[in-house]
This record gives sequence, C-alpha cells and structure tokens, in this order.
Amino acid sequence: MASRTPSPTAARAARNPAPDRSAAGERPRRRLSVDERREQLIAVALELFSRRPPEEVSIDDIAAAAGASRPLVYHYFPGKQALYEESLRRAGRELSARFEEPADGPLSERLYRVMGRYLDFVQSHGPGFAALLRGGSVAASAGTSAVIDEVRRAAHDQILSHLAFPSPSPGLRLTVRAWIANAEITSLEWLAERSVPLEELQLHLVQEFVAALTLTAAREPALAAELGSFFADERPDGPTGRLVRDLTGLFAVPGIAEAVTTLAVAAVGETSPQATEEPDEAGAE
Amino acid sequence: MASRTPSPTAARAARNPAPDRSAAGERPRRRLSVDERREQLIAVALELFSRRPPEEVSIDDIAAAAGASRPLVYHYFPGKQALYEESLRRAGRELSARFEEPADGPLSERLYRVMGRYLDFVQSHGPGFAALLRGGSVAASAGTSAVIDEVRRAAHDQILSHLAFPSPSPGLRLTVRAWIANAEITSLEWLAERSVPLEELQLHLVQEFVAALTLTAAREPALAAELGSFFADERPDGPTGRLVRDLTGLFAVPGIAEAVTTLAVAAVGETSPQATEEPDEAGAE
Repeated sequence: MASRTPSPTAARAARNPAPDRSAAGERPRRRLSVDERREQLIAVALELFSRRPPEEVSIDDIAAAAGASRPLVYHYFPGKQALYEESLRRAGRELSARFEEPADGPLSERLYRVMGRYLDFVQSHGPGFAALLRGGSVAASAGTSAVIDEVRRAAHDQILSHLAFPSPSPGLRLTVRAWIANAEITSLEWLAERSVPLEELQLHLVQEFVAALTLTAAREPALAAELGSFFADERPDGPTGRLVRDLTGLFAVPGIAEAVTTLAVAAVGETSPQATEEPDEAGAE
Repeated sequence: MASRTPSPTAARAARNPAPDRSAAGERPRRRLSVDERREQLIAVALELFSRRPPEEVSIDDIAAAAGASRPLVYHYFPGKQALYEESLRRAGRELSARFEEPADGPLSERLYRVMGRYLDFVQSHGPGFAALLRGGSVAASAGTSAVIDEVRRAAHDQILSHLAFPSPSPGLRLTVRAWIANAEITSLEWLAERSVPLEELQLHLVQEFVAALTLTAAREPALAAELGSFFADERPDGPTGRLVRDLTGLFAVPGIAEAVTTLAVAAVGETSPQATEEPDEAGAE
C-alpha cells in the first residue's frame, strides 16, 4: 500500500518508521493511502449512518469525523448517496457474514446463536438500520433496496441450508421469508421501545421459527415426515425444549386444554385428519 | 356522466337533464366539475398505478386514460408524485375500510373474512401494491411511507379491538405487528409466484395469527388467562378448528409425538412449567 504523496519532498518528509499502518503525514488529508482513505471514509460514514438517519448526516459531518476536508470526500465519492450506498453494502456484507453458522448441534440452537449476532448488529447500527428498513427514507434507492434484498436472500439461503430438507417446497420458502420479515419488524419495534430484554427477543424469534416450521409441516406431508428428526435432535434446555415447556404450561391454564380438545375431537369426528387419509377408500392411493 | 363535447354547439346539443352531480360544461375540460375532475384523475391514476410500478406511469398516460390534456392534469396536481401520493392515500383509505368487521362470531372467522377482502385488494392492485411495499421505488417518499404506516396502524388497531383484551401488553402488540408484516410479505410473495390458491393463503395467514397468539400467551400469563375463552368461542370448521385438526394430524406422523413428548417430559422434570408455579412453596401466592 503506497502512501498517497502530494510531492516527492512532502512524501519524504512524511515517511515514518512507525510499525503501525498509519503513515503520519504533514498534511492530514494525505496521511492515508488511497485504499486506506477510502476504507476509512466508508467506515466513518457507516458509523455515522448507523447512529443517525441518512438525511441527518451531511458530507461535512463525514469529513469532520474522518479528519478530512469536504473536497477530499468528494474526491473519493461523487456524493453522499454514493457513500451511503457503499457503506450500506459493507454493512450488508457484515450482516450476511453473521448468518454463517456451522451445521453442528440442534437446529434451534444454531438459529439462536445467529439471532444473537443479528441482534447485536441491530443494536449497534440501530437508527441507521431503522431508517433503512422503515422505507420512505430520502436515501432509499434501487441500490439500497438491492442491498436489503441481498441480505434477506442470504438469511433465507442460510436457513434453508441448515434445514437441509431435500427439496424445500414453495410453502416452506414462504414460511422462511415471512419469518425473516417477522424478525425485521420485531427488531425494529424493539429498537423503538426496547420493552423486553434483547435475550428474550432472541429466544422468542427462534421459537416463532420453530412454530412456523411446525405449522407449515401441519399442511405439508413431505415436510411433516422430516419434522420428527428435527424434534428428536432438539434438547430440553434449548429454544425448542423451552417452547414445548411453555406450551405445556399454557395447556395447564384452566379452560385452554378443554376448549382445544373439544375442537380436536369435533374436528376428528367430522373429517379425518389430513395426515391419515382414508386408507380403506382406495388401497393403492 | 355527460358525454364529451368538442364545441359549444355540440355541448349544448349534448346537454343532459339528468339530475346527477355532473355539470356539463361547454369546453371539454369543463365537462366535469372541479371536484369531479379531480376525483376522476385520482381514480384513473390509482387504476394505472395499481397495474404498473410508478416509474412506468407518466402524466401523459394518466391524461390519456382520463381523456384529458396534460396541462389539465397539471392544473389539478403539481406533478406525478403528488398525484401518486393522492391516489395512494385513496387506496390506503379503501384498504383500511376493508379491515372493518362487525364484532360477531368466532374471532378467527372474523379475521378470515377481513383477510379475504385484504387479499382481493392485493390481487386487484397487484403491481402497484408490490412496488409500494418493496421499497426503493423512485416514488417512495415520506408521504408514501406515512400512508403505509397509517394502513398498518389501522390493521393493528382493528385486530386489537377484536381481541378485546383489557390491556394489550407490549408483547401482544409486537406479535400483532409482526403478523401484519408476515401478511404483507406473504401476499407480496404470492403476487410474484401465485404458487398456492388465494383461499389457501387466506386460511394460512389466519392460522398463523392463531399460532402467534398462542405462542405469545405461552409466555404471558395474563394473556394465557384470556386464551381459554378465545378457543371456546371457535368452531371446528373454522380456521382455528382446522388448525387444531392439522396439528392433530401432524402429531400422528411417526416420530413427532414421541420426540415432542420426550422434550416435554424432560423439560417438566427439570423445571416446573411457568404457568403452574410452585403452589406449595408459598401458599398465598
């Protein structure tokens, strides 16, 4: 990484034997190499855009925070929008990287770890994350939409790869997408109100995924056939085990088990359940 | 509706004694009253913006579809964005009106009827609805965001009013908002792929609401106390009854009941369920 030099003399004067990467120059705006300066501007912009909505961040703010001049920022980026979109792309890549998780252990525990990293990101990039996802931002564009879509796709693909079901149905894909939307909106609302501890949110989102998966399986026999091994891999103290415990507790509340049993019995009496379809009607079906 | 007249003479000939509000003018652009013309332009714009994303609709398209001149459109609206936002406000009010439902009968059946009207709207305003909600549209603005937020708030308030729980907790409000996001994203995906019949989507969304409500109740004792009467009001052939049937069917699939029971038993053995807290510890609790 050659340092950016205004003239041979100044460059020689600025040359610094310090072992760290920052080459202390005579004039602040020439201290960093082209690549370093670009990276620094993006990092500073991301930091500012994380803390405030884009319309409240000016090129002057970014220049000041970077210890650079306004023209220098314009030398690297045509304008605030370009810098916003570039810093967003960085944030998107960073967020997508947080979705990666080894395929080891119970599925709900993997998702729990991923959600912990996701919620850390949400917390540290709060206002910018909110401004971006709330839409209608003055800085929203095809470019920012593409970044959001890319992150959603990464989340979707990661989840499907962990589920590792042979051929995910359109219904399952839809469930995954809807749950991702749920996670987005829930974390946005959490940012605004912070009404529950973050760990609680982390657990609830994972449990909602398990519930959504179960509901999808209830209408898709092929998925239902996979669900047994999903539950068999789960542990009592993991998110799924705790969900089962919570639901067991719920059914001990007076009135609930009775009412649900009445529905189940009436339903079974009227129509045979989908998963056990009339075996005596057409033996070869 | 008076016919369009090319000249004063023709206009006089065409003058119509019909008692309706339309004031037949002498020149084409005066045919409709100011209010009527404005309404007509909004209706025509809404129709076009429903069928195509906003960037693919021009003022010329709107003028042509309205049988008006470009200057006339500009006489009523400063530009396409203003007309877009106004037509969006109309659409938002129309959509919000569809959420209104008498407080009669089982709750899931009320929601089922509302979702039928919502999905009709989605279907008839497809591309415009998608462009609006996907974000990043060139026409997205603080104004369009406000419309979307208003519709979401109307949906949220309607649901809470039907639930009629004394004091909805932050957790319940969050569940409702997350489910609304689920309904949005699910209908957007459906618009793109139409992989299932609309009636199926209608049923699934309602059942997902019932599941989300149950999950929330599993962690909120106050809500749990209300859930018994919710289930007691439901009918076997309604969305909740059918959900119970589907889940009963699911638990008949080999492996699932065993695995879940193992989790439940292990969990109960380790920690007492939340809803039945140690009655022998402090008798007066």
